[in-house]
Amino acid sequence: MTTPGELVARVLTEDQALVRGAMRRAIPDAEPRRYLYDLVEAYQARAGKGFRASLCLAACRAFGGRAEDAVDAAVALELLHSAFLVHDDIEDDSKLRRGQPALHRSHGLPLALNTGDGLCALAMMALARCSGRQPEVGANLLAELAHLFRRTVEGQAWELGWIADRNFSVSEADYFTMVLGKTCWYSTIHPCRLGALIGSRGRATLDRLVPFGFYLGVAFQVRDDLDNLALDTDCYGKDIGGDIIEGKRTIPLIHLLTHCSPEERQEVTGLISGIGRERSEERIGRVVDLMRQHGSLAHGRDVADSFAQLALGEMPRAFADAPNRSDVDYISSLVLYLCGALRAPATPSAA
Amino acid sequence: MTTPGELVARVLTEDQALVRGAMRRAIPDAEPRRYLYDLVEAYQARAGKGFRASLCLAACRAFGGRAEDAVDAAVALELLHSAFLVHDDIEDDSKLRRGQPALHRSHGLPLALNTGDGLCALAMMALARCSGRQPEVGANLLAELAHLFRRTVEGQAWELGWIADRNFSVSEADYFTMVLGKTCWYSTIHPCRLGALIGSRGRATLDRLVPFGFYLGVAFQVRDDLDNLALDTDCYGKDIGGDIIEGKRTIPLIHLLTHCSPEERQEVTGLISGIGRERSEERIGRVVDLMRQHGSLAHGRDVADSFAQLALGEMPRAFADAPNRSDVDYISSLVLYLCGALRAPATPSAA
Repeated sequence: MTTPGELVARVLTEDQALVRGAMRRAIPDAEPRRYLYDLVEAYQARAGKGFRASLCLAACRAFGGRAEDAVDAAVALELLHSAFLVHDDIEDDSKLRRGQPALHRSHGLPLALNTGDGLCALAMMALARCSGRQPEVGANLLAELAHLFRRTVEGQAWELGWIADRNFSVSEADYFTMVLGKTCWYSTIHPCRLGALIGSRGRATLDRLVPFGFYLGVAFQVRDDLDNLALDTDCYGKDIGGDIIEGKRTIPLIHLLTHCSPEERQEVTGLISGIGRERSEERIGRVVDLMRQHGSLAHGRDVADSFAQLALGEMPRAFADAPNRSDVDYISSLVLYLCGALRAPATPSAA
Repeated sequence: MTTPGELVARVLTEDQALVRGAMRRAIPDAEPRRYLYDLVEAYQARAGKGFRASLCLAACRAFGGRAEDAVDAAVALELLHSAFLVHDDIEDDSKLRRGQPALHRSHGLPLALNTGDGLCALAMMALARCSGRQPEVGANLLAELAHLFRRTVEGQAWELGWIADRNFSVSEADYFTMVLGKTCWYSTIHPCRLGALIGSRGRATLDRLVPFGFYLGVAFQVRDDLDNLALDTDCYGKDIGGDIIEGKRTIPLIHLLTHCSPEERQEVTGLISGIGRERSEERIGRVVDLMRQHGSLAHGRDVADSFAQLALGEMPRAFADAPNRSDVDYISSLVLYLCGALRAPATPSAA
């Protein structure tokens, strides 16, 4: 019998190979190379998990389609993900991404910002190819892409706005609104919707996938926030503790701010706003210590686990009409994997 | 008899009113307001000429459609134009846009960059609405949008790359390649293509519009570059001489660099690279003086006029199949207006 870990290792690897091939065709062999397409290519070569693409392909198969029908949509999702990361790193002035310098640090802000726009344009081109081959769902693909993009920008606006405004009164409910926006639509909800739309040739009820994708996206994001606080740099690829330096509102931080003493609260808000003389590592160390003392990290793990359970509980409804149950099983295993409940040995671990 | 100036004043004003109404429906009355949609709204309220939208509506009417059929596509073009301006101003670190501080200077870089992405997302939503109402051309709209976006980013990459690399050997042919990319596709070619596609319900030969749009776009851009060097701040709205400070490769600059003495060339490349102690106004004044001495401004005017003539000469072929000749006449008048050959009194003049 195949374990969930083995299933994820096998299917995710197969899907990655399919997407890699289509990705090569999605990046034009054209000028300007050194100011645009070389940057795009180098960025895409920094392999991420590719789980968004795999979720899209798996949903397509689960709803009766062939992976090949959805591969350009999957490529579009991965390209858009990269576009968001490039712009996000500029907005946060992050140092590292996927184990290498963020694009604006290696190539300067102007070319990096423009390359982010270029990744977005290539995502549209990939989806247009998908649309051209399947006229019966073609017109809906643009609406799905537009919605995904709009919601992601809204979530990003919340996060950036709170930091700019030094708003330390963000609640867990605010956090969930923000994560639904910045993470769930493009990482989990629309990958499933696009796959189901294409696989079912427009017959699946896409709105049923929204709660599942929301729960899964939150579980994934909270887990990613916790990984950002971990001390294991090798397998992370982003700046450890970067969220603290960038002042990101996360579940552990919100928990800490609502459970610590008034004096500690003042200290923490100063540390995450760049006030005071401590260097980055000291700031991160102090905030993580306080999180540990107040049970904020354990609370974060509880939230991630609860949402993973909610996602699994939602699966029967979300995939009720999906005829291919082996692909639904794979999606269940992917939920466990994304929430850190299992390690798939053969896949890269950079986010 | 109506003069071209009167025709532009009347039709451009009518089109602006139609687009303004549709634009209000295109900007969601939703949260996050102060971190996103307030910025979008305020930016769109800084009225530009709206000529891209008007070109799209006029092409739709010329090819037999109603302006209402294309109004969401026209709105998409204006929103995308704004998205490009917001990102362009960040890339160039420009000070002014449409007579007010550039968005990243009034609201900070992170929120401005994200608002640029938001404008792009709203453009996609507007086009998706257009697509939903006209299934026979729906799938093609995404391909048109993707192509327009990709080419614009390529043109932008050339411009930014040359500045980053301190490349002073850019030829006029290089300049035309860059302007075809950064200006023509989204400002003139695709507005005509989208209008013709919608107006003809997919029957027009869109590729015939490409040379016309290329000539018109170059004429417009060269004229805009010359306006940037003018001394009349009131009716411009961007930083006068900003192109010189930002090191933009323009027709007058390329002419100057190829016609001045080796000593002057060294001085000019220093001035546009920010080397030396002169303040901005002194740099601009000196470069403009040299351009005047070497006939570079007159050469720029010649190039703009030649391309305007090429555009007018191409019109019979481009609009051969368009049944509504009064709209074709309007487009001819718009060509004259965009190339500075006439002043339309009733329209705003900020770009």
